Amino acid sequence: MSVTKPSLPKGTRDFSPQEMVKRNYIFDTIKTVFRKYGYAEIQTPSMENLQTLTGKYGDEGDKLIFKILNSGDYLAKVDETLLTARNSQLATSKLSEKALRYDLTVPFARYVVMHQSEIAFPFKRFQVQPVWRADRPQKGRYREFYQCDADVVGSPSLLNEAEFILIYHEALSKLGLKDFTIKINNRKILSGIAEIIGKPELIVDMTVAIDKLDKIGLDGVAKELIERGFTEADIEKLKPVILLEGANVAKLESLKAVLSTSETGLKGIEEIETVFNYVNNLVSDNPTLTTQIELDITLARGLNYYTGCIFEVKTNEVAMGSIGGGGRYDDLTGMFGLKDLTGVGISFGADRIYDVLEELNLFPTSAQQGTKVLISNFDENAELYALPLLQQFRTANIAAELYPSSAKLKKQMSYADAKHIPYVILIGEEEMQNNLLTLKDMVSGEQQKLAAAEIIERLK
Amino acid sequence: MSVTKPSLPKGTRDFSPQEMVKRNYIFDTIKTVFRKYGYAEIQTPSMENLQTLTGKYGDEGDKLIFKILNSGDYLAKVDETLLTARNSQLATSKLSEKALRYDLTVPFARYVVMHQSEIAFPFKRFQVQPVWRADRPQKGRYREFYQCDADVVGSPSLLNEAEFILIYHEALSKLGLKDFTIKINNRKILSGIAEIIGKPELIVDMTVAIDKLDKIGLDGVAKELIERGFTEADIEKLKPVILLEGANVAKLESLKAVLSTSETGLKGIEEIETVFNYVNNLVSDNPTLTTQIELDITLARGLNYYTGCIFEVKTNEVAMGSIGGGGRYDDLTGMFGLKDLTGVGISFGADRIYDVLEELNLFPTSAQQGTKVLISNFDENAELYALPLLQQFRTANIAAELYPSSAKLKKQMSYADAKHIPYVILIGEEEMQNNLLTLKDMVSGEQQKLAAAEIIERLK
Repeated sequence: MSVTKPSLPKGTRDFSPQEMVKRNYIFDTIKTVFRKYGYAEIQTPSMENLQTLTGKYGDEGDKLIFKILNSGDYLAKVDETLLTARNSQLATSKLSEKALRYDLTVPFARYVVMHQSEIAFPFKRFQVQPVWRADRPQKGRYREFYQCDADVVGSPSLLNEAEFILIYHEALSKLGLKDFTIKINNRKILSGIAEIIGKPELIVDMTVAIDKLDKIGLDGVAKELIERGFTEADIEKLKPVILLEGANVAKLESLKAVLSTSETGLKGIEEIETVFNYVNNLVSDNPTLTTQIELDITLARGLNYYTGCIFEVKTNEVAMGSIGGGGRYDDLTGMFGLKDLTGVGISFGADRIYDVLEELNLFPTSAQQGTKVLISNFDENAELYALPLLQQFRTANIAAELYPSSAKLKKQMSYADAKHIPYVILIGEEEMQNNLLTLKDMVSGEQQKLAAAEIIERLK
Repeated sequence: MSVTKPSLPKGTRDFSPQEMVKRNYIFDTIKTVFRKYGYAEIQTPSMENLQTLTGKYGDEGDKLIFKILNSGDYLAKVDETLLTARNSQLATSKLSEKALRYDLTVPFARYVVMHQSEIAFPFKRFQVQPVWRADRPQKGRYREFYQCDADVVGSPSLLNEAEFILIYHEALSKLGLKDFTIKINNRKILSGIAEIIGKPELIVDMTVAIDKLDKIGLDGVAKELIERGFTEADIEKLKPVILLEGANVAKLESLKAVLSTSETGLKGIEEIETVFNYVNNLVSDNPTLTTQIELDITLARGLNYYTGCIFEVKTNEVAMGSIGGGGRYDDLTGMFGLKDLTGVGISFGADRIYDVLEELNLFPTSAQQGTKVLISNFDENAELYALPLLQQFRTANIAAELYPSSAKLKKQMSYADAKHIPYVILIGEEEMQNNLLTLKDMVSGEQQKLAAAEIIERLK
């Protein structure tokens, strides 16, 4: 073996013990809430057949899919003219049959179609797995990152939408966030608006433009709308809708007036109202919740496939993009030949949530601890004395370590510090004679002589 | 989008909710034990630089590494003669810079070297992540599977070996296994034996042959030894060692006599004795444990890199290969330029353990449940009545669902059955009037009228 200077592929990360404990804290919190709402976990393979993935994410997306080189003598099967033509795009289909998962939604659609006979619909599933994208790496954007999705397929009920709002609320509150906004919109309202203006075919252009209101302001949006084929008159009609303010109820009333002649638009309003009613009835005892839900007409994410409600979550405590989003899509599995199966789902942005909790110092101490107590090791006698004690801790379900060799006190203390171990037990001659151990609290520095049973009681 | 008939790459698997709950039960049990013994979790990226992996697993291993096709116009950089020569092996280094993790050991070694300045040694880490191998798929062998490893680097103490025996014992016992054997051997004993015969250079041939004793019997082993360059006289010397029987103590005494002139061999015996002493002192109150530890001189797995103790675990309740293994390797990180760092580690074969628990029917009911209670939904009134109740269950940390639309009783019951939901609440006119709900136990079929608070108390 030759010596290799070790490095990581760009855009990928190692996670240290400290980071893993925090990441697990986030994932476990979200998973616990998913389960409480009846969602069950599935996993799909990291690699899918290339043709399962291609054509699902647009041309740009296709380029960002990581392809896996065929095994064995893969060049033997490739036409020579293709190779000498140096057409990488054409050659890929010959060199590669498999690719890494790009998101969790397409593999989920494939799963539902392949397992439709075993599934009891409505199928409520969650999935927390890594995805891979050959994006240009930059701050906060990685080539491997976890997605954290919950979806239900086969149920048109808007109760699902309402429960997703509660799931966001409960999970983020449990993680310690205090001020965040769950934004909601509906594709049918956007369709209605485009219809009223008389430009239903420009709905995508319209939403792309008004989606930028936060960033470029009303003048910027107006300019972009003109560029995208709207007239000054259209913009005048759009303005009151874009600038809609006030409580959700007031917004809905204004919209009803504006959209009174659009059947689709009114249907969208009705859907939002139904979702709000479900939420109110579910949490009639928690008045703080509803104030964090905001009807936002400019919200348009993923419009290409959303057909009903659209969600996005933002924290108001830290400057950060959205920390979650989702929506309803009426034909998720059509791409694999199973028609008319409606779905709705949400996603948590785990990496961003991690950064938010870090910045707000919200990780609990318990999410930073592994081993609870380290038993020091000064010589063979002390080691021998410590062995049954060590196992007593573990029998009491206390994570415990014996320093594995006799070493200087300072070295053993540094080890405990580095691992954030909150207690160290010191065993010297005196301790062994009296059967009273010295328990050192590594945070306060305090030391106390206690019997083993007392220490176990205290640390349990 | 064209319609694609969905399929999975061969050797890969989807995991259904039922399978995931069982898999998580296994992983969680093992992780809990790892943590109790002071091991902390890390994760490494799924993809490593190709040169980090190549040359570490032998020529056969290199062929089984899944390579990732470079992104963009990857053919542009490849020499034309290389392409037209159709030499797949040579071309790979030009077409691919990254590859999928083949095991957890090499990425761990890379991790230790890259992060050596942040690590407090001894470094006790565990890692549970998938690995990928382009092996020919067959029953029980997959191209993507999870490894479940714990290793400690930077500590020569044999306490680590002893604790790994306890970790195996505790994790497998917790999983319900009652009869399993933890086999132990030591590379130095094998070296000593080869030395005594006067053929130290044939140690690998010797161990490969005697490792097969179980499968091909003594005559088979003798035949293979002859083929591999041993004489009849050598075999006569080997026989008593290979056929060593009795308790561990008796075996060790016999070996001491045989190996009395081999310093290395005696060192190996001493190491085994030290491990046994550690185990005895740790669990002086649990006499059943030590009987499941067996010194097995024919055990040789992974001899290429193990330098001290070697472990293997077998269940005696089901016919199955080893469900775990590991050992000590004195120079894990040398391949990345960090010399003389000793390591010892073990691995659990999670897929095989899954099959064993399934065959012995050892998965607890709690490892098969998601949602605890389903509230039925017969009409709008009942739904409205159910909404606050639904949220009360969740506030009490009871996983609950309301069937999301009014449907026939039979359909709702099938849904509960398919999801293994143990309780269903029926809400009809009478129930709403009296505020007494019908709770149906889905296992016994029993029905009872209870107030909401009583049901919550019962299901908590």
